[in-house]
Amino acid sequence: SRNNFVRPKLTPIRVNGFVCKNPMEVNADDFFKAAALDKPRVTNKVGSNVTLINVMQIAGLNTLGISIARIDYAPLGQNPPHTHPRATEILTVLEGTLYVGFVTSNQPAPNRNKFLSKVLNKGDVFVFPVGLIHFQFNPNPHKPAVAIAALSSQNPGAITIANAVFGSDPQISDDVLAKAFQVEKNTIDWLQAQFWENNHN
Amino acid sequence: SRNNFVRPKLTPIRVNGFVCKNPMEVNADDFFKAAALDKPRVTNKVGSNVTLINVMQIAGLNTLGISIARIDYAPLGQNPPHTHPRATEILTVLEGTLYVGFVTSNQPAPNRNKFLSKVLNKGDVFVFPVGLIHFQFNPNPHKPAVAIAALSSQNPGAITIANAVFGSDPQISDDVLAKAFQVEKNTIDWLQAQFWENNHN
Amino acid sequence: SRNNFVRPKLTPIRVNGFVCKNPMEVNADDFFKAAALDKPRVTNKVGSNVTLINVMQIAGLNTLGISIARIDYAPLGQNPPHTHPRATEILTVLEGTLYVGFVTSNQPAPNRNKFLSKVLNKGDVFVFPVGLIHFQFNPNPHKPAVAIAALSSQNPGAITIANAVFGSDPQISDDVLAKAFQVEKNTIDWLQAQFWENNHN
Amino acid sequence: SRNNFVRPKLTPIRVNGFVCKNPMEVNADDFFKAAALDKPRVTNKVGSNVTLINVMQIAGLNTLGISIARIDYAPLGQNPPHTHPRATEILTVLEGTLYVGFVTSNQPAPNRNKFLSKVLNKGDVFVFPVGLIHFQFNPNPHKPAVAIAALSSQNPGAITIANAVFGSDPQISDDVLAKAFQVEKNTIDWLQAQFWENNHN
Amino acid sequence: SRNNFVRPKLTPIRVNGFVCKNPMEVNADDFFKAAALDKPRVTNKVGSNVTLINVMQIAGLNTLGISIARIDYAPLGQNPPHTHPRATEILTVLEGTLYVGFVTSNQPAPNRNKFLSKVLNKGDVFVFPVGLIHFQFNPNPHKPAVAIAALSSQNPGAITIANAVFGSDPQISDDVLAKAFQVEKNTIDWLQAQFWENNHN
Amino acid sequence: SRNNFVRPKLTPIRVNGFVCKNPMEVNADDFFKAAALDKPRVTNKVGSNVTLINVMQIAGLNTLGISIARIDYAPLGQNPPHTHPRATEILTVLEGTLYVGFVTSNQPAPNRNKFLSKVLNKGDVFVFPVGLIHFQFNPNPHKPAVAIAALSSQNPGAITIANAVFGSDPQISDDVLAKAFQVEKNTIDWLQAQFWENNHN
Repeated sequence: SRNNFVRPKLTPIRVNGFVCKNPMEVNADDFFKAAALDKPRVTNKVGSNVTLINVMQIAGLNTLGISIARIDYAPLGQNPPHTHPRATEILTVLEGTLYVGFVTSNQPAPNRNKFLSKVLNKGDVFVFPVGLIHFQFNPNPHKPAVAIAALSSQNPGAITIANAVFGSDPQISDDVLAKAFQVEKNTIDWLQAQFWENNHN
Repeated sequence: SRNNFVRPKLTPIRVNGFVCKNPMEVNADDFFKAAALDKPRVTNKVGSNVTLINVMQIAGLNTLGISIARIDYAPLGQNPPHTHPRATEILTVLEGTLYVGFVTSNQPAPNRNKFLSKVLNKGDVFVFPVGLIHFQFNPNPHKPAVAIAALSSQNPGAITIANAVFGSDPQISDDVLAKAFQVEKNTIDWLQAQFWENNHN
Repeated sequence: SRNNFVRPKLTPIRVNGFVCKNPMEVNADDFFKAAALDKPRVTNKVGSNVTLINVMQIAGLNTLGISIARIDYAPLGQNPPHTHPRATEILTVLEGTLYVGFVTSNQPAPNRNKFLSKVLNKGDVFVFPVGLIHFQFNPNPHKPAVAIAALSSQNPGAITIANAVFGSDPQISDDVLAKAFQVEKNTIDWLQAQFWENNHN
Repeated sequence: SRNNFVRPKLTPIRVNGFVCKNPMEVNADDFFKAAALDKPRVTNKVGSNVTLINVMQIAGLNTLGISIARIDYAPLGQNPPHTHPRATEILTVLEGTLYVGFVTSNQPAPNRNKFLSKVLNKGDVFVFPVGLIHFQFNPNPHKPAVAIAALSSQNPGAITIANAVFGSDPQISDDVLAKAFQVEKNTIDWLQAQFWENNHN
Repeated sequence: SRNNFVRPKLTPIRVNGFVCKNPMEVNADDFFKAAALDKPRVTNKVGSNVTLINVMQIAGLNTLGISIARIDYAPLGQNPPHTHPRATEILTVLEGTLYVGFVTSNQPAPNRNKFLSKVLNKGDVFVFPVGLIHFQFNPNPHKPAVAIAALSSQNPGAITIANAVFGSDPQISDDVLAKAFQVEKNTIDWLQAQFWENNHN
Repeated sequence: SRNNFVRPKLTPIRVNGFVCKNPMEVNADDFFKAAALDKPRVTNKVGSNVTLINVMQIAGLNTLGISIARIDYAPLGQNPPHTHPRATEILTVLEGTLYVGFVTSNQPAPNRNKFLSKVLNKGDVFVFPVGLIHFQFNPNPHKPAVAIAALSSQNPGAITIANAVFGSDPQISDDVLAKAFQVEKNTIDWLQAQFWENNHN
């Protein structure tokens, strides 16, 4: 029964898998990260880079339900369709322009998954609800874009759709994927042979 | 402020958007559905049919955090890669055999999204954690399969990946998808021209 | 203070009392149980058997808030009045017929606890809200019944009312129970002398 | 989808079924009750009276997850075995002595439900975990007792076991109860013919 | 990922940083404290004393979300303006009279933080919503007052405003505080030189 | 009982006090705000301006548990000591330098409330745990500073300590405050006569 407990005698206190310091021993560095979120990052193959500061970087975030990220977008770069399994995201544009969108969950027939999109300029704010597939795309061929995003979990997780579906280790059966995506198996095989790079760091 | 309330005088009480009956007026039918979960369903194009009993079917489920589904699989049919944005799923096989799996969220480089899979026989139980991409496939070319699944939300939602990515209304820009999936735009256009049928009912 | 934490250096990570494996080390068996839920179980003295698959059987269920059970009912057998202190239950009938019901919590005078009941046939679905006293009874004198139930906790707990009240270890004072149940003390003594068998396994 | 909302234009705001006043219009009386918790209450047939101050009495409690009660015990009176389906209780004795206890949920065989009890004197504190069957008994034949209890919900609910099992409206089938409690049907009939008075007000 | 766990083999089970006993080994003392809440306490410099019984005193409270306190007030004593960062408080007066109040959070201009207050007599009940600044004052120059309060957390925390602002270790910069409180720096210095005694025990 | 509901027939659906649009009628503007977070704001008397984008500005944030803010700091300006009663805050510096800190809740004697502080440069990240008193100060006499902060609630609330204590409407009794802050009543009167301007917009 979860209701029956005694206080630990000999071991450090853990909450959600992290050791809890004695409150009189914590210091400001437990709540701090010199994250250099002001510095541009090298973007990846699809033209983006997500620098997430979560409970892995700041131990004091444990149980507190929030994290923050800088996202860099190369010209014509994108943060490709992905979900956060445990968090809603709120984003504001620092530099450049972003075309953003998310797709709602399945609707009763005959309706289809609805796609909601918006062009964001500097200073605009947009929300991506928990678990929904979303992306951001920098439509400018000449200039990079930058956003700050916050997520409603200290460990939100990210699932890049293409990577998880076509780039997993081991690979998902091409029989399953060919039927799911209504394409030939050799198309799936070709997709699975690509290099799927994670832009969430 | 959420902390300041008075009791309603004239209107029915609502919780999570549903009217709350006076407790002395509720009856057993508010907690019941003649769902015919024992009856086989016609499967769709990819060979499956999910019959979900959630708060839309049983109003008394409101706020209670659970729902149940029967899933039918045609021979070689599949419940294609999808996520539930607000629920974990636990499943048991009633008839036939299922090859099931899910993909973990993005891992720090150089690791890739890990694919965990298992062949399930009658009576086996498997868990798909909240928000992760998962599928079930009936590998038997001659016999259908049936499963009962439960979800940890009265309104779990379902996002069929292929439908949401390639079959949304309106469509996602093929520029974005071509780069995200590392294919030619005409491949995306071909995919978007398919009929994407929802198997979640 | 719960707000002050540091990351563990030397010990495995625990969540809700369970060790958390490194995500790259988990495998499908952490989310699987060969539970044989398709196989009939021997029923107990009151004619039922609950086979619950919870976090004790599937470690990967930890924190995920769901579990599943098969319930067998002998002819005229019952899953006697009980509560789940930490979960709502949703149930569907696989075989046979069940007479089910639950009792609402105390109502303002002069109303009494309301009893809501229903006869369920194969394929029907019914909900038992968290913490309320409920039962299922197989009214057929010749045929067994089978149900699949899901519960909104990875560790829902079960309290069989008769066992907890009359069969606890040690026994509750017969003075207290005689007055509470408005019977003679020797009736309580007789009840406490019975063998109270747990049907939740 | 729960994620799609617009602000109300014309109607008062409701949370958890209660109308939410404009924050600038709330006043102290929305958080106050002249509850007279200092005054002894007339006890019922089993010798107790629970005066609960919850969200029905103080509208401002809505969403705040707590309530408070005064409990009066006649000499040899008891607050008979009951559960709170949605709350843990913490209790302190103001006057007299109480013999209190709770029973744990079902344990794996061969163990039985464990009964934990304690004699409480003035100023002692005891905890009854959420959903577990518990009682308080005043063992003194000459003097009343008084306790203050707090519950971890603004609407904890109370289920008096004897009332819910034997005094519901309509009655539970005596066939079911006779087998569940291992007694003759006429014992159940006799129990169901008693007057089951609610001591929770 | 939080979703990947195995059961511990060698170490005691912990929840929220506390070791979880085997359910068959718990006993009533894990849920009990001889807290002497019936005994008057010596009040501090501002005339009050809060005796809180939380998870530090009763290990079985872990995860259960409630705690209880006795508060003593000297004649003209006060429980000075403070907040509970993780709990709502509900209070009832056992002895004497209390002038109580709380201040709402910032309102859109031109409105100011609203102060809601009430004089409470014996038996009255009042609610202080989570995180809001509140106080209790005994206006009687001759008689002490006593209250019982309950809080919606097993570890609610308390922040005495004057102590946290002017009595912290180390001190907050007097430049910052002088501007924040619109006073001269030497007023801040004088305040910081006072002895700030914690009345929460 | 919260467990008894029926679906609304005639009225729009509300969640947490907000009307829920039919999912097929939502559009991207329900998740968007042209917030101009890139534009400097005029700072107030203490030298700051908080521009919060919460559920009041973006209706689609309802139930999603997050919000975002831009904070402007004049040279030597501060966001004075305040709390968020329902949220943790995570902040990153966009421009300039900030001296930030928070004070822990009361500690057992003889310890005092601990003050944790840090100088933040551009790109640094800091966390202020839920409900704790915290501030940010721009130590540069010549240059403004700018930060982006995210909060773990769609309606976090803000309580500026000085405003709530000395600037409430109506005022808190100067008897109470004089004793609480260990100063003369005329010091309190002087403080209460100041203009307390809200910097949270």
